[in-house]
Amino acid sequence: MNVNGRHYRTIWANDDEPGVIKAIDQRYLPYRFVIENLSTVDQIACAIQEMHVRGAGLIGAAAGYGMYLSALQAPRGSFERFNAVLQADAEKLKATRPTAVNLAWAVERQLASIQSAGDLNAKIQAAYHTAQAIADEDAEFCRCIGEYGVAIIEGISRSKNGETVNILTHCNAGWLAFVDYGTATAPIYAAYDRGIGVHVWVDETRPRNQGARLTAWELGQHGVPHTIIADNVGGHLMQHGLVDLVITGSDRTTYTGDVANKIGTYLKALAARDNHIPFYVALPSSTFDWKIRDGVKEIPIEQRDEDEVKFIPGLSGGEIITVLLAPEDSPAGNYAFDVTPARLVTGLITERGICEASEEAVLGLYPEKRT
Amino acid sequence: MNVNGRHYRTIWANDDEPGVIKAIDQRYLPYRFVIENLSTVDQIACAIQEMHVRGAGLIGAAAGYGMYLSALQAPRGSFERFNAVLQADAEKLKATRPTAVNLAWAVERQLASIQSAGDLNAKIQAAYHTAQAIADEDAEFCRCIGEYGVAIIEGISRSKNGETVNILTHCNAGWLAFVDYGTATAPIYAAYDRGIGVHVWVDETRPRNQGARLTAWELGQHGVPHTIIADNVGGHLMQHGLVDLVITGSDRTTYTGDVANKIGTYLKALAARDNHIPFYVALPSSTFDWKIRDGVKEIPIEQRDEDEVKFIPGLSGGEIITVLLAPEDSPAGNYAFDVTPARLVTGLITERGICEASEEAVLGLYPEKRT
Repeated sequence: MNVNGRHYRTIWANDDEPGVIKAIDQRYLPYRFVIENLSTVDQIACAIQEMHVRGAGLIGAAAGYGMYLSALQAPRGSFERFNAVLQADAEKLKATRPTAVNLAWAVERQLASIQSAGDLNAKIQAAYHTAQAIADEDAEFCRCIGEYGVAIIEGISRSKNGETVNILTHCNAGWLAFVDYGTATAPIYAAYDRGIGVHVWVDETRPRNQGARLTAWELGQHGVPHTIIADNVGGHLMQHGLVDLVITGSDRTTYTGDVANKIGTYLKALAARDNHIPFYVALPSSTFDWKIRDGVKEIPIEQRDEDEVKFIPGLSGGEIITVLLAPEDSPAGNYAFDVTPARLVTGLITERGICEASEEAVLGLYPEKRT
Repeated sequence: MNVNGRHYRTIWANDDEPGVIKAIDQRYLPYRFVIENLSTVDQIACAIQEMHVRGAGLIGAAAGYGMYLSALQAPRGSFERFNAVLQADAEKLKATRPTAVNLAWAVERQLASIQSAGDLNAKIQAAYHTAQAIADEDAEFCRCIGEYGVAIIEGISRSKNGETVNILTHCNAGWLAFVDYGTATAPIYAAYDRGIGVHVWVDETRPRNQGARLTAWELGQHGVPHTIIADNVGGHLMQHGLVDLVITGSDRTTYTGDVANKIGTYLKALAARDNHIPFYVALPSSTFDWKIRDGVKEIPIEQRDEDEVKFIPGLSGGEIITVLLAPEDSPAGNYAFDVTPARLVTGLITERGICEASEEAVLGLYPEKRT
């Protein structure tokens, strides 16, 4: 999407500089727009691990480019040494964020693609094309989610006689988490780009504030009207007719329709249900879990460091400073995700279309997953 | 309650120093425990306006002491001049927080009490005794709320065979908002002091973080086990059996049982209902609104400065520093309260006992309010 009026992806290969991958270094957002040059596997691994890049789709794309750099820089003396370096780099990349499904998937896809190519030059070519394909497919899936999802916004806009459609979102399921478009934001960008009046309520998303830091920034840069709110506010807005639609992303969705997403999503789904407001989840097919039946009971919820709750970074005097928000001795709990049961989800917006959050409907969209 | 092992009220007259009122200066909590000397009406007015003291009960008590200082320091040449100064001080105090019901109520009570006393010395005595009475009654009402509310916690403790009772609270309806005990916290302190195992989930309470800053501090100082959580977390905890009871305070409750309280309370009430967890609201009778029937439709919700959402103060290098959390150009919305409909409230804990959140039950407890 646009930054300062110019189109960017979150990560890209620069044709003028072979062997250099460019990525937005998200650690400095929203305060500074920094583009980082990544020219070794170690730099890519560091960028993933230290969260210069983050979000399911973007991590996968970064890993794909990482394997391309590995192939480009591996010793060419023998297939054996070349392969040994490639394998070591693959393990290194996979270890950076062990729970990221897209990361391992992208690395394995690269290994298979490089494996199947003939000589070393062909392998490097294959690695380059696969890295581009992974990034392109990620962007294309998100674009499709936008195409399907925009119909929901168009419908609401028509029923409001063209009045602004107010959409609430939680966390950052925006283009910054993918290569382009995002998932929850894709229908919003599509609507905005078609001239449909939209306004987005951006949940701050404590404790890591991905909404206030990233979603607000990317919407603002693309020109989409938005307002940041504390996570506490959504229910009040829904009670008073100020929200027409909720769209969130997902970190994992069971084939039965239970949605694991950033902590607090469940509370917004409850408020949407209490106020008869549609609650949609946008996700690419890679986010489905085809094994787990009961998401609330079975999806393990990561608990993170309490310091993410007790301390917060922000800008003061041009510098990013971390401040303490609570009594030093008080413990804090930091549950990273929650699960919204399928009964509270109006529908799932995927790259194949929109379906109900139910086993029957999901398998209808993905018939190859029927056992 | 206790601070560093010693009992304190939030405000008190010091018998050794007549004409000096002492109060905890809450601006420095949780980082520093500062006691402020207030010896003029202007200092009291400033302490209320600049929120050195805050919370319904405490503001009322502070205003009561302010009128005592006014009587003590007003010129004694003639009743007329004495009365003129008293009236001017009364207006000054009432203007500090115009929407605080207890503030105007305490000032009027003092004016009536001073008016009805005979000579100037008697008037000063009356002002002193009324100030003490206002503070004592506030503490006593909160103590009664604790006595009634502790039965709920005892019941849960018994049904869990003495296992720890997990209680979630939102914002600060603690003793820091009153003279002592607090409202939502009173049953918790009563349970803790009787040796019942309790643990409190403290909602951070964005954007002003009264939970993380004040509730966590006061619970910690009194020794009550607690854990700070982001406002997003409560629903997940309730889904997983980690919350036995929710108790919040209230800023205004209609006689029909609709509860206006800090923004985000409604979301916790929805989650409690979805998970069959009792949701209680603790309040003194002064918090009831005897005129409004439909709280969701009729209670006006204050919108505050967006900078409270976009900036946050915290401790860095021993100093309290304010940092920016969001893109400078992104607007923020700051709704301060929401209304939880009576249908989501299990019961109201008042100084007269516990009742259902319904017109019939509330008027049963306050029969003098039947028209």
